Amino acid sequence: MDEKRYIHSLDFIVRDYECDVQGVVNNANYQHFLEHARHDYLLSKGIDFIKLHEEGTDLIVVRIEIDYKFPLRSMDKFVVKSFIEREGNIKVVFYQDIYRKADNKLIINAKVTTAAVKNGRPIYPDMVVERLFPQQP
Amino acid sequence: MDEKRYIHSLDFIVRDYECDVQGVVNNANYQHFLEHARHDYLLSKGIDFIKLHEEGTDLIVVRIEIDYKFPLRSMDKFVVKSFIEREGNIKVVFYQDIYRKADNKLIINAKVTTAAVKNGRPIYPDMVVERLFPQQP
Amino acid sequence: MDEKRYIHSLDFIVRDYECDVQGVVNNANYQHFLEHARHDYLLSKGIDFIKLHEEGTDLIVVRIEIDYKFPLRSMDKFVVKSFIEREGNIKVVFYQDIYRKADNKLIINAKVTTAAVKNGRPIYPDMVVERLFPQQP
Amino acid sequence: MDEKRYIHSLDFIVRDYECDVQGVVNNANYQHFLEHARHDYLLSKGIDFIKLHEEGTDLIVVRIEIDYKFPLRSMDKFVVKSFIEREGNIKVVFYQDIYRKADNKLIINAKVTTAAVKNGRPIYPDMVVERLFPQQP
Repeated sequence: MDEKRYIHSLDFIVRDYECDVQGVVNNANYQHFLEHARHDYLLSKGIDFIKLHEEGTDLIVVRIEIDYKFPLRSMDKFVVKSFIEREGNIKVVFYQDIYRKADNKLIINAKVTTAAVKNGRPIYPDMVVERLFPQQP
Repeated sequence: MDEKRYIHSLDFIVRDYECDVQGVVNNANYQHFLEHARHDYLLSKGIDFIKLHEEGTDLIVVRIEIDYKFPLRSMDKFVVKSFIEREGNIKVVFYQDIYRKADNKLIINAKVTTAAVKNGRPIYPDMVVERLFPQQP
Repeated sequence: MDEKRYIHSLDFIVRDYECDVQGVVNNANYQHFLEHARHDYLLSKGIDFIKLHEEGTDLIVVRIEIDYKFPLRSMDKFVVKSFIEREGNIKVVFYQDIYRKADNKLIINAKVTTAAVKNGRPIYPDMVVERLFPQQP
Repeated sequence: MDEKRYIHSLDFIVRDYECDVQGVVNNANYQHFLEHARHDYLLSKGIDFIKLHEEGTDLIVVRIEIDYKFPLRSMDKFVVKSFIEREGNIKVVFYQDIYRKADNKLIINAKVTTAAVKNGRPIYPDMVVERLFPQQP
């Protein structure tokens, strides 16, 4: 992963309730971290996930792939780093990796494919694409 | 998906706290449903996830792939159906699909690759494999 | 607690992801169980929490008190039993207790005080009160 | 609430997955925020919740009371402020309040009564009390 490609990073700390009986962060919670990082990035570009929903457009995840490399534990500090690519006309792919802050150890690799729907039907999300990929036609 | 291949199914109902602002089950919660179905299946085969942990062996997820096909909503009844395959010597793959009960609509397809570790190192989980794949050498 | 006063009960099983590093159900998750039991009860009376929200009325919790008596563990079966009382003109109080099924052991006692708001202001929820307390004026 | 009594504060931001269909933070999640603030405070005093568990001592919540005053919404910044008191010989009470950062609006008041148990029996947690109440005999 070329460090320079990341366009967004967000710091977190593991909260104890996110850990399960194995003493490590439960697998599902990584999806929560990834979602929060995506929404933070979108908001930084003026794209308000909640406001879009209220206007009838939903940004949704259509596919997720996560490779779990190493577990996080109680109070570990970590960072979610992301970059994006378009896939076809209507999908936006978030590549999101998590690193432990103490030693930069890779925790997970994730590929999250998203789309936009209006009233349940896929749409081309003009505003979203314009703000996320300003240089592209 | 060949219906006859499923070897385990478990019924659920969507709880309101599992839904988010979009009015649908939050993506991460599907991982919770899949995990609970896997642990229920393991337990039916005499494999106690928690007890194994206390004995030093952890069954872990090393990769997950989920295709989100259609969202579940408040109080929807659904079923998680699973079958398993071995991958190489030490991995067990769970294929897990979720269907809405009312109309058998496919909600997600998932492929969950698991392994066993002892003191952080991969091991061949004899007992687990013997109980999950009794006919195989 | 007089057994006969309960007007609703709902069965659950502990899912492993609901347990934390201490090996027991995390305290916050009991609120989830209580909420799901309340919504199940309301629905049985024709009161749809989500539909009410969409129509502008929100049923909300204004106060919760929980006494934690004994912890639940992985795969424990348990039941949430509830009864209700009115408090003043506009509040409905849910008394909710959780028992472990295996031995009827008391797990928690809870008192959940709820109210209804419309556009952020408290209202008298006619329909809700009529359906929950049909004999009362 | 006398501002000067607070001995610990911790900043958070609402993550979208913490909100439910009503568009506000789900009630149970406030318990998560309170727990994380308590564990952060304990850790600042050299009391490691997880390590204590591994050594056989569990700090547990025996009672919680929460008054929900006003809801938090997506991306709201908020602070959990806490102070502590002893109750009898063996209980430690955390008074924890949440304020929205933008306008210092009170969101919840909470009183969380905790105790220590070893092998399921209540104990006097010397080390914990000494570190939390150093001036007291």
